[in-house]
Amino acid sequence: MKAKVHVSLKSGVLDPQGKAIANALHTLGFPNVGDVRQGKLIELQIAETDPAKARAAIEEMCKKLLANPVMESYSIELVG
Amino acid sequence: MKAKVHVSLKSGVLDPQGKAIANALHTLGFPNVGDVRQGKLIELQIAETDPAKARAAIEEMCKKLLANPVMESYSIELVG
Repeated sequence: MKAKVHVSLKSGVLDPQGKAIANALHTLGFPNVGDVRQGKLIELQIAETDPAKARAAIEEMCKKLLANPVMESYSIELVG
Repeated sequence: MKAKVHVSLKSGVLDPQGKAIANALHTLGFPNVGDVRQGKLIELQIAETDPAKARAAIEEMCKKLLANPVMESYSIELVG
């Protein structure tokens, strides 16, 4: 089973990388770009056929390694 | 209009960061994790109401700044 985990900074948290991208885009001639936020997208393969169990395992992985729950939020999407 | 741009390494390209995540997950007690790939997810706000124009502008941004077309592929998703 394949899963996509999207990790992004919580909305209150300052995102300097996103700000840098926004500034660069303005400089490159895209003045109509507003707020930019950069997150991570982790695609993983898990040897588990039960979607509920797969989701629970990935939730655990997010808490232990993939995301920093203090500053980041995550969402899990199971793909086929 | 809001857009999500997903930038990931092309499939033939070695992803050391993904490999490191996979190894760490194995060590943490998730032996059933297979291949892991890490990409970027950039969320941006664009002051453009025409979806076709917004998509064209973002395509341009990807080529100029957001992705490295030699090694990375990208997909654009317009959200509302």
